[in-house]
Amino acid sequence: MTELDMAGLQRRLTEFAAARDWEQYHTPKNLVAALSVEAAELLEIFQWLTPEQSARVMERPESAHRVVDEVADVLAYLLQFCEALGIDALAALSAKMDRNETRFPPVDSADRHSPE
Amino acid sequence: MTELDMAGLQRRLTEFAAARDWEQYHTPKNLVAALSVEAAELLEIFQWLTPEQSARVMERPESAHRVVDEVADVLAYLLQFCEALGIDALAALSAKMDRNETRFPPVDSADRHSPE
Amino acid sequence: MTELDMAGLQRRLTEFAAARDWEQYHTPKNLVAALSVEAAELLEIFQWLTPEQSARVMERPESAHRVVDEVADVLAYLLQFCEALGIDALAALSAKMDRNETRFPPVDSADRHSPE
Amino acid sequence: MTELDMAGLQRRLTEFAAARDWEQYHTPKNLVAALSVEAAELLEIFQWLTPEQSARVMERPESAHRVVDEVADVLAYLLQFCEALGIDALAALSAKMDRNETRFPPVDSADRHSPE
Repeated sequence: MTELDMAGLQRRLTEFAAARDWEQYHTPKNLVAALSVEAAELLEIFQWLTPEQSARVMERPESAHRVVDEVADVLAYLLQFCEALGIDALAALSAKMDRNETRFPPVDSADRHSPE
Repeated sequence: MTELDMAGLQRRLTEFAAARDWEQYHTPKNLVAALSVEAAELLEIFQWLTPEQSARVMERPESAHRVVDEVADVLAYLLQFCEALGIDALAALSAKMDRNETRFPPVDSADRHSPE
Repeated sequence: MTELDMAGLQRRLTEFAAARDWEQYHTPKNLVAALSVEAAELLEIFQWLTPEQSARVMERPESAHRVVDEVADVLAYLLQFCEALGIDALAALSAKMDRNETRFPPVDSADRHSPE
Repeated sequence: MTELDMAGLQRRLTEFAAARDWEQYHTPKNLVAALSVEAAELLEIFQWLTPEQSARVMERPESAHRVVDEVADVLAYLLQFCEALGIDALAALSAKMDRNETRFPPVDSADRHSPE
């Protein structure tokens, strides 16, 4: 059975790197560099597209496959970075949303639906 | 109760953006640009550190807080990007790991512990 | 007199770093990380803009100032990176354009002005 | 004769894009996205290297060639971005250095050579 929760994937990534002797390369600095490189590779797919074209990128199998593959790489390095530093990414995001919900009050629904 | 699973956070991000009329900015192209900007801001914390210093970044409360905050931002934009395009990031990573486990065979444990 | 040629600015950057004992941080790896961080900071200014808004970014003094400032940072790290590795960036670009002019033939002017 | 000054290369890039009908893609937003993607591709070459290995990257012809090629791409997009917005990158950097020389006073040479 494939583990599909985040903690399970994080463990699997750790074992994968250990079995290949790759931990020596996985300093937090290197992992965050790799994370930003993968995020840029995901951006590359979109760089010349109009906003409208960017919304249809999953319609073509070839670009859909590239996008999904780069998403996997971004998540892989994010999880390995968090593992290396003992960070719980889901808790970090949850706490940030608690703060943001106070910091940015929602717009009034009347304003939201007004013509301007 | 705070939702701490990924799908729950994804829903919360969607509602947060909708309540502030921010969906208009959230094209896949803009979200992936924001993702790569946040990944670079995380990298910025590490850019002048030695590998050893980078491993100790959570020891100082100030840098620890910055790191956790940027991790939250990276995950937030990754989840919003995936939501916009209907991508399941955990399934994407799981499928990629299936492929990588075949593509990169583990090193033999004898090799791994050999002096060179 | 302010030197405005690229070689002059490169010398000035080298002397600036030496006078502040910053050379110890200026490994090629750190400089390229800083370059990519600055490029992302430039991207950040544009991330939520429409293509049309992005073309008018110099009309507002505040965003114009930010853009020019980030351009300076990108060029500064690019020149320092090139200095550290003995690369002549202008010669590199000139050689690349020689190759690209062969690799991508110009479109025929008739095609270029055709309705489709 | 190959033009090797920055203004000459900038003109050549403009003519190159015009002759291929690529100006339609060259919004400032797209060009800065491409700039940050190329900077990340340059970073990718260094992501798993130690600081010491990063200083020797030009010793191997293969990696040297990749580095020079990515430097050309970064400079190409920086110049095209500046051309699109009417920014003089050399003047921007020169002005920034004037400010930085005031903002960061040089360390005293006695301090600089002290053992700690």
